[in-house]
Amino acid sequence: MTRAAILNVTGYAGAELARLLHSHPGVELVAVTGRAEAGKKLAEIFPHLRQIDLAVGERVDESVDLVFSALPHTSSAEGLIPFIRQGIPVVDLSADFRIKNSDTYRRFYGVDHPAPELLGGAVYGLPEVTRKPEQGARIVGNPGCYAAGALLALAPGVAAGLFGADIVIDGKSGISGAGRTLGQPYHFAEANDSVSAYAMEGEGHRHRPEIDQELGCLRGKTSKPVAFVPHLVPLTRGILTTVFAQVVRNVAQAELMDAYCSFYEGSTFVGVVESPPSTKQVAGTNNCLIHVRASDASGKAIVVSAIDNLGRGAAGQAVQNMNRVLGLPETMGLEQLALYP
Amino acid sequence: MTRAAILNVTGYAGAELARLLHSHPGVELVAVTGRAEAGKKLAEIFPHLRQIDLAVGERVDESVDLVFSALPHTSSAEGLIPFIRQGIPVVDLSADFRIKNSDTYRRFYGVDHPAPELLGGAVYGLPEVTRKPEQGARIVGNPGCYAAGALLALAPGVAAGLFGADIVIDGKSGISGAGRTLGQPYHFAEANDSVSAYAMEGEGHRHRPEIDQELGCLRGKTSKPVAFVPHLVPLTRGILTTVFAQVVRNVAQAELMDAYCSFYEGSTFVGVVESPPSTKQVAGTNNCLIHVRASDASGKAIVVSAIDNLGRGAAGQAVQNMNRVLGLPETMGLEQLALYP
Amino acid sequence: MTRAAILNVTGYAGAELARLLHSHPGVELVAVTGRAEAGKKLAEIFPHLRQIDLAVGERVDESVDLVFSALPHTSSAEGLIPFIRQGIPVVDLSADFRIKNSDTYRRFYGVDHPAPELLGGAVYGLPEVTRKPEQGARIVGNPGCYAAGALLALAPGVAAGLFGADIVIDGKSGISGAGRTLGQPYHFAEANDSVSAYAMEGEGHRHRPEIDQELGCLRGKTSKPVAFVPHLVPLTRGILTTVFAQVVRNVAQAELMDAYCSFYEGSTFVGVVESPPSTKQVAGTNNCLIHVRASDASGKAIVVSAIDNLGRGAAGQAVQNMNRVLGLPETMGLEQLALYP
Amino acid sequence: MTRAAILNVTGYAGAELARLLHSHPGVELVAVTGRAEAGKKLAEIFPHLRQIDLAVGERVDESVDLVFSALPHTSSAEGLIPFIRQGIPVVDLSADFRIKNSDTYRRFYGVDHPAPELLGGAVYGLPEVTRKPEQGARIVGNPGCYAAGALLALAPGVAAGLFGADIVIDGKSGISGAGRTLGQPYHFAEANDSVSAYAMEGEGHRHRPEIDQELGCLRGKTSKPVAFVPHLVPLTRGILTTVFAQVVRNVAQAELMDAYCSFYEGSTFVGVVESPPSTKQVAGTNNCLIHVRASDASGKAIVVSAIDNLGRGAAGQAVQNMNRVLGLPETMGLEQLALYP
Repeated sequence: MTRAAILNVTGYAGAELARLLHSHPGVELVAVTGRAEAGKKLAEIFPHLRQIDLAVGERVDESVDLVFSALPHTSSAEGLIPFIRQGIPVVDLSADFRIKNSDTYRRFYGVDHPAPELLGGAVYGLPEVTRKPEQGARIVGNPGCYAAGALLALAPGVAAGLFGADIVIDGKSGISGAGRTLGQPYHFAEANDSVSAYAMEGEGHRHRPEIDQELGCLRGKTSKPVAFVPHLVPLTRGILTTVFAQVVRNVAQAELMDAYCSFYEGSTFVGVVESPPSTKQVAGTNNCLIHVRASDASGKAIVVSAIDNLGRGAAGQAVQNMNRVLGLPETMGLEQLALYP
Repeated sequence: MTRAAILNVTGYAGAELARLLHSHPGVELVAVTGRAEAGKKLAEIFPHLRQIDLAVGERVDESVDLVFSALPHTSSAEGLIPFIRQGIPVVDLSADFRIKNSDTYRRFYGVDHPAPELLGGAVYGLPEVTRKPEQGARIVGNPGCYAAGALLALAPGVAAGLFGADIVIDGKSGISGAGRTLGQPYHFAEANDSVSAYAMEGEGHRHRPEIDQELGCLRGKTSKPVAFVPHLVPLTRGILTTVFAQVVRNVAQAELMDAYCSFYEGSTFVGVVESPPSTKQVAGTNNCLIHVRASDASGKAIVVSAIDNLGRGAAGQAVQNMNRVLGLPETMGLEQLALYP
Repeated sequence: MTRAAILNVTGYAGAELARLLHSHPGVELVAVTGRAEAGKKLAEIFPHLRQIDLAVGERVDESVDLVFSALPHTSSAEGLIPFIRQGIPVVDLSADFRIKNSDTYRRFYGVDHPAPELLGGAVYGLPEVTRKPEQGARIVGNPGCYAAGALLALAPGVAAGLFGADIVIDGKSGISGAGRTLGQPYHFAEANDSVSAYAMEGEGHRHRPEIDQELGCLRGKTSKPVAFVPHLVPLTRGILTTVFAQVVRNVAQAELMDAYCSFYEGSTFVGVVESPPSTKQVAGTNNCLIHVRASDASGKAIVVSAIDNLGRGAAGQAVQNMNRVLGLPETMGLEQLALYP
Repeated sequence: MTRAAILNVTGYAGAELARLLHSHPGVELVAVTGRAEAGKKLAEIFPHLRQIDLAVGERVDESVDLVFSALPHTSSAEGLIPFIRQGIPVVDLSADFRIKNSDTYRRFYGVDHPAPELLGGAVYGLPEVTRKPEQGARIVGNPGCYAAGALLALAPGVAAGLFGADIVIDGKSGISGAGRTLGQPYHFAEANDSVSAYAMEGEGHRHRPEIDQELGCLRGKTSKPVAFVPHLVPLTRGILTTVFAQVVRNVAQAELMDAYCSFYEGSTFVGVVESPPSTKQVAGTNNCLIHVRASDASGKAIVVSAIDNLGRGAAGQAVQNMNRVLGLPETMGLEQLALYP
């Protein structure tokens, strides 16, 4: 059994990781941290995890085989460095190992990267798109939740050369995406029965540069940035991403479907479906459902993807990445069907 | 006192109209119809309207001064024809008097327009954009809810010549937009805690041709159709519309703000605000809050508008149109502040 | 025009009061306070109030005719004392002037009452039940939200001598009842799609002694305390209260209906309805809808009442109380119909 | 591998059963029916079940080892009779095998029981309370969702002789409890942001006689009926049950906790917790969380239980019952942790 640890289990991504690892047949969760709650039993903080008999610690000693970090950016890299130095593989759910370019990191996160020398050794772990990580990888940057939804929606069209540079991404996220920390916009009375856009000022949302970076990899060249606006919608879990991509030529529905179906052929997690998906259909899973619509008179192809922001957008993706790093079957521990309705 | 009637009061738009007219100081609601519920007191169907002492009738005799119709398309024009023939002004909340071109109507609604000869005499009633209706107008087509949100967001930029032909509209509507009629996607257990796109097949959503028509009027020429995808979000009332408009040249934030503020100068209902609005801030009103963001590296200006789909998207707009037709102050009966939180 | 002020406008009850007073024809809102946000325009804090041109101040000078306080308990009495001393009438939305007995206050609120000598001059303002305040009253204690819902449901049965001492009250409140202050249970991701009981430890919820006090007044004697459990339900506004009252003898449905209808005869705000009400039917209003069910084999009569916790449970009730104090028509400024759906 | 079938997979309970059986290591789901959708692939109706490769049939042939029925009452017994006749064990999620007394059945369900002669051979399957079914049982009546929540909350106190005959039950259910069938109260725009009581007329809710029957078994005698009111709360899954039980003598908190903890000792599914539970903490599971509060001045002990109405209230309970009938470990296939938040 692989012995795994979670740094910062006390947020929603950390708790979801604990939930998934608890029923993973190949991994044992042996240590969890969470500074503000150190000393408490996990069950005190999260009654739904009362079957997991672990106390929250202040730190993880190094006798573990793999470490997940759900710490905030900067703290996350700092927390992971000791493990990386020891050769212990890490899966980082923060932004610290997503962006290859440390200038971009500084521009979007407002701080210097704590360990830019490690960026070259990190891989962006969105396996269906990046074919990474491979077994034995040491540093995996887990995608941002919006980036995961957008890249899964865009990759087949971009890889097939059907989509041009003009790309609009409208992201709609459930409130758990904002984390467990309190904030006025996440107060139930403010968020309930309402919808709003956010992160419109300045450079826009921090997940945009990831999208640009990975689309550039697929294209083999950089291109103009995507237009991206994230929205808060009143649900707990889920991201629906609607992308509008200028096509390079007229593309029929059947051709677009073919491009998407063959790109995701053999993928257990990604389904290309005949009707627009709803986020409820993937709740609690690492799945992504995608629906495509051929270009029309507006010259745009439209693709919609549905993921669970805590599943494919965080903890589910992290477990998939762990499975690949460890050489386990990619779907191990991720076979649960969505909790619908 | 103007004597007004509502055809089909038993849907959400009709009930909201009754609510607004009840507190309108210049109008008396004297008759309401609703075939399936004819004979019942309004209070039996809608306990929140128990202060309105009216029974639902099968028809309205013609001794009224103005008629609203909240009937479905086709039935609506048919129901209004007798009043139009008598010279009684009508405000139609259905699609029947929105589209000027009866071929377009047939293409999007799948039926022949019941009275194409009346289309020329109808005006599209979105006053801040169309400067219509004028006092004494006889046939007012009330905009579709998505069209209202999109046109209010786009009009200043298009009218100022800042926006090119490439326009993407992402609409997010509360479930009351689907009406009071039952349907699987509107069952609470399906819609709650979920978000989805719809109307992606074929020609797309029926509100698109209205948007294209009115943008053409603003531009003085037709252009390529907009790309538009509507979404169901789990709230009762509200539409948030996010538009991504290709700019014809680089436009600074201040210039874009100026264009929007001067376009809506003097408007009581439309506010251009410094932060992205939420739909909750306009619930129960005829208001529209708009936030703009200048073009960035993606070459897009982004505009977000928030309306109440039953207010500005239906009944509130209808009352504003009635006020204009009757020569009353435009805001009469519409001064309520939004019900927040 | 009466000149009114609100102490602490920045919570939900204060903001709702501002909303109601803005459209009240007999009152002008001239000053609002809110320490943390002092100096800001009201519109900056609450975009839905942008039509109210007032800045938040640190204090209210005494040139006002009536003062509302939405301050927390203790601070509220302290803030109101200067006005009371000057003979300016006050309506207090906090608990400070609800409880007659300062020992009970200390037991439930954990502090000494800041001005016990004023309690004798205060009236409990639930007019349909207490027939108070009368014109010219100087200190009005506005009921707690749960107490308002429970007392309106119980009063007719208790006053008619039909209900014995054994009373169970199950209260279900929307999240705005917890105020605008942040707290983990009110985070959207925690509260959404969930329901829970609270305040079960120790003496129970602080609104219980109000209920016992006022039932004692109706009975003309004290009795054993009611059993009361409050619950958080995932809605923004609304309290549904279900009371189970042991009947003193078998009571038929018609007799119970008669008792309720005659008790509330002539009341504009309270409706005794034929079907169980939903909170949505009173959203945004000072109304209360009540449904009764005669005793059955269990020996209990069951009464359900629906109110808006920010309306009848706070700001609406405060305006009704103000109207009575000032000798204005009781319904002035409170005629709006509920925002349904 | 046991070969299992589901009659009427197309409702929420049926779909949840399919979800659970898909990941059950000891059972293979081999056939599902659903008249209106017969011929469709399960994935067409329920995209979240697309990993289950089964088509919906019109009937199940008898080469199965166990049959679940999620048919409506009456149809359910009729549908199960052929299997019962063949000696195939059945777990019935309808009401048909819950009530022992066929007169009571007629009174509450308005029809004659289709096979009263089978009632004697049926067991009420709430194992922690009824210690049934045992291995080899042939007919299991799965409890009603409200009954499950109420009985789990009441059983220890009743069994210990602490609770008298005076019992009040306030049930709060998510909307999926009403099934997948459409109805005006379950329309999102009606149910969202609202709460209401229902089933208050006549004899009250149909789950009440089950509760009375099973409490009578625990007491060893019948007693006066409980008072029970069910409520609709705006969540998808979950029932919170609040019971107020007259105590026979003063009972301290520690004694009550002891009674509950020892009653549920060794139970994996039921947890007695220190804080009031929320339904979210059990979503997607067969678990029940219970919180007790000793009798106070009102003379009532108060107990709150949280279950998932589709889990412990339907499909989870059915799988637990199946496990017992087949002699499998009771928790097999039910180890998933709750989907929180």
